Amino acid sequence: MDNIEQIVAAVTAPDQSVGALAQAHLDNLTKPTGALGRLEEIARRLCVMKGDARLSQPRAAVTVFAADHGVAAAGVSLYPREVTTQMVFNFLAGGAGINVLARQAQAQVHVVDVGVDHEFEAVPGLIAAKVMRGTRNFAAEPAMTMAEARQAVMVGARVAAQLMDQGVDLLIPGDMGIGNTAACAAITAVLCGRTPAEVTGRGTGLDDKGLARKVQVLDAALALHRPDPADPLGVLAAVGGLEIAAICGYCLAAASRREPVILDGFISTTGALVAAALAPAAREYFIVGHASQEIGHQAQCQFLGQRPLLDLDLRLGEGTGAALGLSLVRAAVAIYNEMATFESAGVTGDKVEG
Amino acid sequence: MDNIEQIVAAVTAPDQSVGALAQAHLDNLTKPTGALGRLEEIARRLCVMKGDARLSQPRAAVTVFAADHGVAAAGVSLYPREVTTQMVFNFLAGGAGINVLARQAQAQVHVVDVGVDHEFEAVPGLIAAKVMRGTRNFAAEPAMTMAEARQAVMVGARVAAQLMDQGVDLLIPGDMGIGNTAACAAITAVLCGRTPAEVTGRGTGLDDKGLARKVQVLDAALALHRPDPADPLGVLAAVGGLEIAAICGYCLAAASRREPVILDGFISTTGALVAAALAPAAREYFIVGHASQEIGHQAQCQFLGQRPLLDLDLRLGEGTGAALGLSLVRAAVAIYNEMATFESAGVTGDKVEG
Repeated sequence: MDNIEQIVAAVTAPDQSVGALAQAHLDNLTKPTGALGRLEEIARRLCVMKGDARLSQPRAAVTVFAADHGVAAAGVSLYPREVTTQMVFNFLAGGAGINVLARQAQAQVHVVDVGVDHEFEAVPGLIAAKVMRGTRNFAAEPAMTMAEARQAVMVGARVAAQLMDQGVDLLIPGDMGIGNTAACAAITAVLCGRTPAEVTGRGTGLDDKGLARKVQVLDAALALHRPDPADPLGVLAAVGGLEIAAICGYCLAAASRREPVILDGFISTTGALVAAALAPAAREYFIVGHASQEIGHQAQCQFLGQRPLLDLDLRLGEGTGAALGLSLVRAAVAIYNEMATFESAGVTGDKVEG
Repeated sequence: MDNIEQIVAAVTAPDQSVGALAQAHLDNLTKPTGALGRLEEIARRLCVMKGDARLSQPRAAVTVFAADHGVAAAGVSLYPREVTTQMVFNFLAGGAGINVLARQAQAQVHVVDVGVDHEFEAVPGLIAAKVMRGTRNFAAEPAMTMAEARQAVMVGARVAAQLMDQGVDLLIPGDMGIGNTAACAAITAVLCGRTPAEVTGRGTGLDDKGLARKVQVLDAALALHRPDPADPLGVLAAVGGLEIAAICGYCLAAASRREPVILDGFISTTGALVAAALAPAAREYFIVGHASQEIGHQAQCQFLGQRPLLDLDLRLGEGTGAALGLSLVRAAVAIYNEMATFESAGVTGDKVEG
């Protein structure tokens, strides 16, 4: 797959008929019908995605895409831009939240520099794929050219393809980028047809005044660029971010090969939103791991037709909520594969309900 | 501890001051203040319970208490009573939902016959502690004598003590007993000061007519026995169940030794409710793993001052929701122990907030 259009064309809706086979198996396990709730839903959905009523424990990978944001100069974040670079080193050293939670859920972690404002000199473990040293400030000009946005999308798609070629069959996008909630709110407003005020939150701790300024910046940016929701790549270029574009490509590539993606909070779901705007069937391959505290996440989940698995008041990003969701996905697969059937266990009751 | 009064007297509120030490450590990890939400809350609470700002991964055990219910004869359940016995064999064979989810979360599983209506002849692995072959039908007479109820409470307390003596330091009560949601609704109504209609749900699939009959049975039973909320053991004896009593003792014993208990849904939380009615400080040691679909669970959580971690539409019991909650507890401990600090990782930002 050499370009975005080819990948988009390869994203097709799964055959839902496998779902009935999967549910028949679930209904035969020693529990009342449906008693394992959303674990059953996950198992059934995984079968549908794979087109196979047999499941195995996934080989999971988290990929943290890091990039800087020109809009951070507009005062939409509390943290200095250097933190993006510092956190890249923290990811590589294994000390960040996502490293801990990925280990706990048995997932690999990879880190991709798709646009950090720092020249990393051959840092071991870092996937170097910098498109540019951060986006431009979209309060004043487009964040990226179309060519830059496309390049960033393809970075994510290529990393996903490489992981899948190596046997990874469950993908988790993570994100790091000071200022990125502003870009995500702008994209979400355009693609979900909301005003910035309806989908803009406090990011990492803005107060009321900071939030009002952030909304004002976004209102002005949308008035300036007038991004067209029918042109999702154009929206990305105008008000997006490099890591968001890469996450979009990562999600598209996974969906094109029918592999599940667990989404985290507001940032990774924004990438998925752009993917679903390009290829509507992609949403069938998404599992939303955790509900974001950013208000725009609800509009995103509605757009994707997904309900988050967890709501633990996390607001860290990096893929952390998705890594916790992975432990539920693993539980769902274990239930599907390891529980006894009514017949094998000699338990009455399979005919009681239904 | 030879009797209930001694155990109750040993349940004391933890020293909250350790919480500030734990939070100071959490605030020094490479994330914005509070960004790991409820994972931070769990880590802090575990420190407070243990009275120690150091944490280690718990040695966890699930104990499934099984018993039959005379009230099942009043038509409050869809399933035949034999299922309790059949499921005991399923637990012992490792094929039930709780076996799978406990393996997944690295917890032992033990099964206790505290009152199943079946004579198990030296079944390997089964902890034989039968008080009687099921309770009496509380629609007509008290479910248990006070002596029987006390004996069942002590069964749970002794099993917990043995596990803790063997090094278990996180306890999960599980339950199996056809008809037990009726007993739990009755207890919850009395202890939480609600009417049966306010706290009675569909159990394992009752329709509207079945639900109305169940409420009617409970209304009549409470009018008959007039259980006194100030006498929790009397409530247990009048309208309780043997496994509920055992879970109460199990929770009390854990709290008396400052060990955390993860609760599941409606049944295990009812046992914990009776424990907290006897020893109010016990609630400090409880973590509610999963929100039950039974409406009475909300009143229970309010009484206990707890908010469930998960809400995955589970309605299986056995301890399954708590086993899933254990994976979050393990994640919280890992975060607490394994994340880098701002200083060690060279990340700016510890002074940005607060």
